[in-house]
Amino acid sequence: MKIEFHTALQRLRTCEDVLILTHANPDGDTLGSGCALFWGLKKLGKRVKLLNSDPIPEKYQYLFRGLQNDVFEERYIISVDVADKALLGAALEESYGDRVDLSIDHHGTNRLFAKETYVESDAASASETVYLLLLSLGVTFCPEMADCLYTGVSTDTGCFRYSNVTARTHRIAADLIERGADHTAIDVAMFETKDMSFLRLQQKCLEALELYFDGRVSVLSVTRALLEETGCKDEDCDAIVALSRQIAGVQIGVTFKEKKDGTLKVSVRTHEGVDAAAICAVFGGGGHKRAAGCQFTCGKDEALRRMLPALECALAD
Amino acid sequence: MKIEFHTALQRLRTCEDVLILTHANPDGDTLGSGCALFWGLKKLGKRVKLLNSDPIPEKYQYLFRGLQNDVFEERYIISVDVADKALLGAALEESYGDRVDLSIDHHGTNRLFAKETYVESDAASASETVYLLLLSLGVTFCPEMADCLYTGVSTDTGCFRYSNVTARTHRIAADLIERGADHTAIDVAMFETKDMSFLRLQQKCLEALELYFDGRVSVLSVTRALLEETGCKDEDCDAIVALSRQIAGVQIGVTFKEKKDGTLKVSVRTHEGVDAAAICAVFGGGGHKRAAGCQFTCGKDEALRRMLPALECALAD
Repeated sequence: MKIEFHTALQRLRTCEDVLILTHANPDGDTLGSGCALFWGLKKLGKRVKLLNSDPIPEKYQYLFRGLQNDVFEERYIISVDVADKALLGAALEESYGDRVDLSIDHHGTNRLFAKETYVESDAASASETVYLLLLSLGVTFCPEMADCLYTGVSTDTGCFRYSNVTARTHRIAADLIERGADHTAIDVAMFETKDMSFLRLQQKCLEALELYFDGRVSVLSVTRALLEETGCKDEDCDAIVALSRQIAGVQIGVTFKEKKDGTLKVSVRTHEGVDAAAICAVFGGGGHKRAAGCQFTCGKDEALRRMLPALECALAD
Repeated sequence: MKIEFHTALQRLRTCEDVLILTHANPDGDTLGSGCALFWGLKKLGKRVKLLNSDPIPEKYQYLFRGLQNDVFEERYIISVDVADKALLGAALEESYGDRVDLSIDHHGTNRLFAKETYVESDAASASETVYLLLLSLGVTFCPEMADCLYTGVSTDTGCFRYSNVTARTHRIAADLIERGADHTAIDVAMFETKDMSFLRLQQKCLEALELYFDGRVSVLSVTRALLEETGCKDEDCDAIVALSRQIAGVQIGVTFKEKKDGTLKVSVRTHEGVDAAAICAVFGGGGHKRAAGCQFTCGKDEALRRMLPALECALAD
């Protein structure tokens, strides 16, 4: 069931012994909003812990500075930035998938898997939504919280570049900077640092770039072999995904990434006028208008063969 | 002579028949702040024209929508984002270098070449400063003005990534978005579009990347031959310059660019703790703490040989 802002606030005020769940293959927004909520609930005197199905990538470790999971039996479960229980990842889904009390999210495609869902689909990031909730709860922001929220706000907007950015996004960023967010260090780490291994990966991907429909659709592919050959990690693929849409003339960027279990994760990025979520919905996936994803168990060539008609349709709309 | 904000306002209120000068090799900030000032002065009922020594790159043409130079004999000359009269470029410097009445700028290194200078060295862009002046003049912002100012604000901060960004920068961006700046289209054009020719240039540059002092200094080099081979334009070099600092471990990124006249333009980009303007000052150049430049008439190898000791010194500080 969807709930309103004031009801979500009421739940956060009264909940006790809280478990926060974040999505698998974690990014700056699920971890940033999750850690900020962790801080906020701690400041309200509650016991809190946060879990993720996957290991936390090195680059996001700073979000956990000063935080330590309390030890207790959870009585209230909150997910942040999780649109579907399957996105919790196998480990968390099995234990908690049907037990989430409150889902705080910004995905219009949220499947309403939780008992109650507060979804703000025009927020550029879950961190925007969590910022507003924590502000209304009267929590005093420490610089660590500001760092967490700024990380979510900046990473989910490509550092304020994407079409999901609103005037509110910038005002929140301004406020977080004034509350002590070390924005320069965060932006350098998230956006302005490229390992030579990543630059090699990028080069290899571009050499194998495929273009379709007069260059309006780009297809990039990251195999396990390529990751090993270049010494890259799974999270390095995020920047490859962003690149797929940056090529001049491209309206839809598609990136195929071979997962460790051999299945295929497809990330779709679009420019104005093409709905990425609608494309991915055809294949059981979802997301936002400009950024969405889906999964395949077949190989890349077969998956691409199946997707091409949907991509062509989306262009024609 | 330096003047205060209220004096600059007074000058803008009373000036008539205004020529606006922007710097050579124009970027989004000099053109964005210049065009916004053009709009503002027009709205105050004045005759205005804007000049640049160089042709306006295609990517910035949209800034001139709705603007047309009036025909008149200039009685008041304003430069925007110009730290030194030499930066006006040969054509404008010869005619107007010693006749500038008001320099509006954000470079701490401004040489005070104008009769009066209003310099706000903690502004991330000249467009921030022009925004505040136009706001105080009571000018009604149209979406075209908002586009111009947003372009300057975003391009001079690497789209809100650089250390020059303050809370005020984000608040100004928020206000410009509400006043109609088409931020998504601007960001896509400025930051999210890479021609295949640029991607080839980037690859060639990275293949020839030099690293010094345990990888803390990177050196990239763009020759005329390389630009021709890849089909790139001079302005494509800006993203190569940004790349020089993005390589993991690099504290100082140095890019050598061969100019059309055979001389060498050197761009220096640094991370926190290394003063780019101080390095370039050794060689007669200047700029900001994180981004500065200088020129050489010798070849790249000789220029690098001369710069290396200064670069090592800057690291040791």
